[in-house]
Amino acid sequence: MESLNEVNSPVWLAGLIQALPECRVSSAEAVRAEFGVDRWHASAMPEAVVQAESRDEVAATLRYANEHKIPVTTRGAGVGYVGGCVPVKGGILLSVRKMDRILEINPADGVAVIEPGVILNDLQEAVREQGWYYPPDPASLKECSVGGTIATNAGGPRCVKYGVTRHYILGLEVVLPNGEILETGGRCHKNKTGLDLIGMFVGSEGLLGVVTKATLRLIPHPEARAMLTATFGEFEEAAEAVQTILNSGWQPSGLEITDGFTLRAARNYLGPETLPDGNAHLIVELDGRKETVLKDLSALKDLVTSLGAISVEEAKDKAACEAIWTLRREFSYSLRATGLTKLNEDIVVPRSKLVELVQFARKLEADTGIPVACFGHAGDGNIHTNLMVEDYDTDEAAREKADEALDVLFKWIIENDGKITGEHGVGLAKKRWFKDAVTPVANDVHRMLKATLDPNGILNPGKFIE
Amino acid sequence: MESLNEVNSPVWLAGLIQALPECRVSSAEAVRAEFGVDRWHASAMPEAVVQAESRDEVAATLRYANEHKIPVTTRGAGVGYVGGCVPVKGGILLSVRKMDRILEINPADGVAVIEPGVILNDLQEAVREQGWYYPPDPASLKECSVGGTIATNAGGPRCVKYGVTRHYILGLEVVLPNGEILETGGRCHKNKTGLDLIGMFVGSEGLLGVVTKATLRLIPHPEARAMLTATFGEFEEAAEAVQTILNSGWQPSGLEITDGFTLRAARNYLGPETLPDGNAHLIVELDGRKETVLKDLSALKDLVTSLGAISVEEAKDKAACEAIWTLRREFSYSLRATGLTKLNEDIVVPRSKLVELVQFARKLEADTGIPVACFGHAGDGNIHTNLMVEDYDTDEAAREKADEALDVLFKWIIENDGKITGEHGVGLAKKRWFKDAVTPVANDVHRMLKATLDPNGILNPGKFIE
Repeated sequence: MESLNEVNSPVWLAGLIQALPECRVSSAEAVRAEFGVDRWHASAMPEAVVQAESRDEVAATLRYANEHKIPVTTRGAGVGYVGGCVPVKGGILLSVRKMDRILEINPADGVAVIEPGVILNDLQEAVREQGWYYPPDPASLKECSVGGTIATNAGGPRCVKYGVTRHYILGLEVVLPNGEILETGGRCHKNKTGLDLIGMFVGSEGLLGVVTKATLRLIPHPEARAMLTATFGEFEEAAEAVQTILNSGWQPSGLEITDGFTLRAARNYLGPETLPDGNAHLIVELDGRKETVLKDLSALKDLVTSLGAISVEEAKDKAACEAIWTLRREFSYSLRATGLTKLNEDIVVPRSKLVELVQFARKLEADTGIPVACFGHAGDGNIHTNLMVEDYDTDEAAREKADEALDVLFKWIIENDGKITGEHGVGLAKKRWFKDAVTPVANDVHRMLKATLDPNGILNPGKFIE
Repeated sequence: MESLNEVNSPVWLAGLIQALPECRVSSAEAVRAEFGVDRWHASAMPEAVVQAESRDEVAATLRYANEHKIPVTTRGAGVGYVGGCVPVKGGILLSVRKMDRILEINPADGVAVIEPGVILNDLQEAVREQGWYYPPDPASLKECSVGGTIATNAGGPRCVKYGVTRHYILGLEVVLPNGEILETGGRCHKNKTGLDLIGMFVGSEGLLGVVTKATLRLIPHPEARAMLTATFGEFEEAAEAVQTILNSGWQPSGLEITDGFTLRAARNYLGPETLPDGNAHLIVELDGRKETVLKDLSALKDLVTSLGAISVEEAKDKAACEAIWTLRREFSYSLRATGLTKLNEDIVVPRSKLVELVQFARKLEADTGIPVACFGHAGDGNIHTNLMVEDYDTDEAAREKADEALDVLFKWIIENDGKITGEHGVGLAKKRWFKDAVTPVANDVHRMLKATLDPNGILNPGKFIE
């Protein structure tokens, strides 16, 4: 995808440079190229890159852009999976990655205050050192910025117990498109003062404002974790186990399922001895008190064994648990190691439809010849459905065929009460299906809100609100 | 407070009656009076009451009202504490109380689908029978409607672990002021498809739309609960215990604190033997597996004892736990039994300021002669601060003095990073302080959003957005 802007040396560049401190603005081609991509396959050249170092610089950038109607696409660490920060309309790429200070960690209030460029894992570790916990944990946590997780309302495997990013945002400082500063919420754990302006910005994918500071809710870090892995003959049995565990009153902190295709890829990549037999794999994590969590684990093991698991293994300490999460991440790498392009769709289905989804994936595979690997957050019905495509980036026919397969997939999802994105966002990757995924009235309300807050349409143009 | 409408027999009444099925509209004085109040002390007469029985009737009412610019104030069970559903501008009082069906309870999907008039406790019990749990639990749960809890983003004692109502709303059907139907979200547990329209309506106190159906997230019901009560010599020690419990990695499902004034009232009302000695009272609830929760409770007891508690008592089964929650509710009744008017302000402070808040309450009491009772959700910093006023409703001077005291209280709250309402909403009761509690830019954004969604300003006029 190319930038839609037509001029290479925009007339507004000199004015932008003047509006900001020295060295904040770059129009060098290498810099623009570097900031024109994320982890999806689209790219677009911005005309200028602003690397802001403060809220006031963000405000100066937006004021200037709004006055001159220049597109502004905000970017954190640039590791999104949907092209959300790709500046398809050119203009200014506004990076907040250098605003990366942890301003405060305060257990007595149960809050952390951060700038948006902080890397999520750095925050989690700093908080952990004081015995506290910030639960959102997308797989990209070692490279994604907290600002990016706010823009996408990021999830992860522990949402099944702890919920998504929105549940942990107590306060925001947001620069509005006209450069005004909106402060909303604060450091209190409950707040019903007016409308939920925080919710409006969390997950808004850079279309309504630029977050320059956030106050996050921390909770006590559970003293201990313990895990269990199990394999089952078929996916149906593992999905049934998910339902039985939840129906029996367990509140696991992780509940992950993996299908046979992924397991075969993992055995190829990691060696056949890595995984016990079975065409489905289940991970269950518990957390709680050190003294009692192992007793709970043992009861859970009895339950899972009684459900017909081929193998059940316990992980009783931190190292053993970490090994399981590492294995889980290897599933993703195993798919990459196939050499195929992995189109990772973070779709969600009502939990009762886990089996139907995987059956549909098998049918899609049979119909198209494109292998489909399914694994993910079973407790939430949030199953990453990966179409494994040969020569996607080089062979136009292969690409068209894969895109048609995605159309079939998303059509099925929408018809089955599913959602086209659970945690990655719409970005460019899902834009094609957005209007089918929401009602016409909901689409209108999106457009009205966008027009109200960003009347010139400068923020992240070319994305899901048009 | 009187209705601001000037006509008693509005010209639009006949048209409204025609727009709806028979017997939905009433203009009888007794009916209008009944629907003109909630649990706060304000009242206002609507000109007509519509008791809608379906979404289409709600839509017909709003279409008609929007066309004729008639105020519409929506009401659930009418048991709010802030006058939120009092129709101060007259017009139509739209009751959705008769839309009270539980449409579906589906453990396999982890959802319930309800109409807004369902009583919260009825929902919780129906869900509980199937082993599932809907956590929001305001004290009014036996009489409040789920729609009302959505309008106020209601909380309760278990928010410290489980979060507020917003965290449990997956999908909404909302009638917009022009009568259009917005369907947003659905039955999936994660959803990043577009902006968070659900969040915009949850907690919007009837100012943006009328919820006619909601899909709620259910979680597995914890197998068992166990509780502990403790008394301390002084409030400071109990507040310190709150911090230590959380700092030690406990994630209690309830963490309630009560001050000396309230305890004295309780001893007067219930008998001195009801409560062990001490000027502060702590309640801690744990939940989890039956086999292990008592072991956890015992460890917690050791911790609390080591913190200098005068008395520590365990509640190990359902009946004993229920007795503690009953006692906790009696604290409220004890205050009412003083014969004084209880101005219950659901303020929130950063958790580190629990002690400062109570010290401030003592000072306020000394300065004004108005007793102040503090108790509530310590884990969230959400402390119900009750000014106990003699002759509030009959003596204008007493009322003025109390209102001045509230001004002093809220000024302190705002200056100390607190929030003026944690779970009751703004309504009429907090309207006076709303503009001081949000920034001018946040106030502008509120007005812009209101003007966008309700351009004729028909929904709940006279409340916090003006």
